[in-house]
Amino acid sequence: MGERLDAFHRFRTEMNEKILAHDNLVVRRFFNLDGQAYKPGALSSKVKEMLGLVASLVLRCDDCVTYHMIQCHNEGVTRDEFFEIFGVALIVGGSITIPHVRRAVAVLEELEAEAAASRAKDDA
Amino acid sequence: MGERLDAFHRFRTEMNEKILAHDNLVVRRFFNLDGQAYKPGALSSKVKEMLGLVASLVLRCDDCVTYHMIQCHNEGVTRDEFFEIFGVALIVGGSITIPHVRRAVAVLEELEAEAAASRAKDDA
Amino acid sequence: MGERLDAFHRFRTEMNEKILAHDNLVVRRFFNLDGQAYKPGALSSKVKEMLGLVASLVLRCDDCVTYHMIQCHNEGVTRDEFFEIFGVALIVGGSITIPHVRRAVAVLEELEAEAAASRAKDDA
Amino acid sequence: MGERLDAFHRFRTEMNEKILAHDNLVVRRFFNLDGQAYKPGALSSKVKEMLGLVASLVLRCDDCVTYHMIQCHNEGVTRDEFFEIFGVALIVGGSITIPHVRRAVAVLEELEAEAAASRAKDDA
Amino acid sequence: MGERLDAFHRFRTEMNEKILAHDNLVVRRFFNLDGQAYKPGALSSKVKEMLGLVASLVLRCDDCVTYHMIQCHNEGVTRDEFFEIFGVALIVGGSITIPHVRRAVAVLEELEAEAAASRAKDDA
Amino acid sequence: MGERLDAFHRFRTEMNEKILAHDNLVVRRFFNLDGQAYKPGALSSKVKEMLGLVASLVLRCDDCVTYHMIQCHNEGVTRDEFFEIFGVALIVGGSITIPHVRRAVAVLEELEAEAAASRAKDDA
Repeated sequence: MGERLDAFHRFRTEMNEKILAHDNLVVRRFFNLDGQAYKPGALSSKVKEMLGLVASLVLRCDDCVTYHMIQCHNEGVTRDEFFEIFGVALIVGGSITIPHVRRAVAVLEELEAEAAASRAKDDA
Repeated sequence: MGERLDAFHRFRTEMNEKILAHDNLVVRRFFNLDGQAYKPGALSSKVKEMLGLVASLVLRCDDCVTYHMIQCHNEGVTRDEFFEIFGVALIVGGSITIPHVRRAVAVLEELEAEAAASRAKDDA
Repeated sequence: MGERLDAFHRFRTEMNEKILAHDNLVVRRFFNLDGQAYKPGALSSKVKEMLGLVASLVLRCDDCVTYHMIQCHNEGVTRDEFFEIFGVALIVGGSITIPHVRRAVAVLEELEAEAAASRAKDDA
Repeated sequence: MGERLDAFHRFRTEMNEKILAHDNLVVRRFFNLDGQAYKPGALSSKVKEMLGLVASLVLRCDDCVTYHMIQCHNEGVTRDEFFEIFGVALIVGGSITIPHVRRAVAVLEELEAEAAASRAKDDA
Repeated sequence: MGERLDAFHRFRTEMNEKILAHDNLVVRRFFNLDGQAYKPGALSSKVKEMLGLVASLVLRCDDCVTYHMIQCHNEGVTRDEFFEIFGVALIVGGSITIPHVRRAVAVLEELEAEAAASRAKDDA
Repeated sequence: MGERLDAFHRFRTEMNEKILAHDNLVVRRFFNLDGQAYKPGALSSKVKEMLGLVASLVLRCDDCVTYHMIQCHNEGVTRDEFFEIFGVALIVGGSITIPHVRRAVAVLEELEAEAAASRAKDDA
């Protein structure tokens, strides 16, 4: 796995465990509800993850962007679709979103490299 | 047309005319590019307008929300789909988005009333 | 009731009813969780409402400010305490919070006038 | 005076008096420091007011925008200069600043109408 | 001292010295006023630091969160109280505050480890 | 070149190339328009870069701050002028801008060290 994604996963998993281990109902229910919001319903998970990505970009939350980039990639969002989401984010949120788009593209490259390595392994 | 939508349209049209009448290239190009970002491409206009709506909700821009509610409604976004977008916005952006969701629902009611009146007229 | 508070209550109640009438689990659970976050626990409801107020002020959400001003007033927050909360909000959030502090003080005056009218009535 | 500016001045003056009448040192010193930040130094008041205006636009604070539009107008900022400030705000802050630019232009029209009326009176 | 806190203290101290060494009255007075806002008055320093913490969380400022976590810990805020503050921040500010809550919990663990090490040393 | 500036330039250049290599018209036009907004017109590039800097500070975008610090330095903005811009940013945006001002001052020190080294080399 790429360095950027690896560091993200490790810290996220470690801290989520610590947070959910603490007996606070509001915090635990919020984490649970956060997962439910992206389940398919009238809208598909793919569309909902794209909504989560554009919201994270305009709010300029790098960890949230990384998370939704991974989810969107798993839902089959293509490079062209990613760039159209970036276009909407840039127009709505302005040039202050550019550094976050740069880091999103770096995440995209890691995701594509992972997928290519995985396909090469399957072919071997 | 509903009161809320009517006031929105009038002020928006009047001021956009004044803004675009001024000879400033950056401002005019930005307005032009804003329109292009929602044109269909790899993603449909419907998906792009939903992206614009969720971005406007989490950034808590009422005029932007009103604009994208109208566009989404024209693209055929249903009440169930609107509420799933509101759900993502509430989770990502928190309870400070609630007042904007309230006003979005008020806009939705005006849009549905308009559509019903228009259908009744067509039937007559 | 003061004009500002009256308009706030009417629109809030009307729209919350419409929102909760729609069968969307994420939206309804979020509204429910929003209520639970201010229930007394390790911290009193008074402290939690003050936390909600300062968060609403720095995020510059007038409807949220109005709501938490009412809740804080009901929890017995005094004028001196309110101004110390405003002081923290101004320092943390800067001069862009000033217009929201102005409107918070207008709400405070309505709340104090209501309380005075209610006491006068009880004395009569 | 135009309706928009008149309502702004009246509420601002009334609430500032109430706020400063309360004996809270942090709040009073913050208001005082807010005034000092725009006094001429290494940079002129004109430049500082333009900095205040662009900051208010990207933070999307209408009352702050109105205040700095008035101050900039008094410092001799021209219509062309205002539109270049709007251009920077649109690029940095994105399309969510558009509604605030619209209201800034409405304020500009009132300021120009006032100035024209004042000149006509002087000529009479 | 933990690595996270150590790096925070060193950069903060070094840069604050450089900033305050420059002869700019507004900047120096702002830093001074920032300190005054958390002094006990009608509200205790403990409550004010909790207000500072929740404001920093919803505004998603990691350095501010780290600073107020330390101050709150020194004022005796317990783990249960911290989690209730996190609960309010999550509800008000949404899932974009989650990464900041994760880092706040990492700071809390360092603060608790320091306190435990300090008690062990006193007992020896 | 200083370490902070060097890392900034390398990542920025690498990612901008990747972004502009992708055939997305909205994204490319936005990047182009971003450059045009700071070209001299009714206002000088120096004033426009100062506008860009204060906007970046109050929106708390470190990469944007670094970029505009470099541009301002190239336009001849002095240390006293930088601190007056920081003063406006602190007042408008509050104490949450302090960490960004700290990092801006660290950038300023690197820029001044570079300029001093360059002058020493020219003298040799």
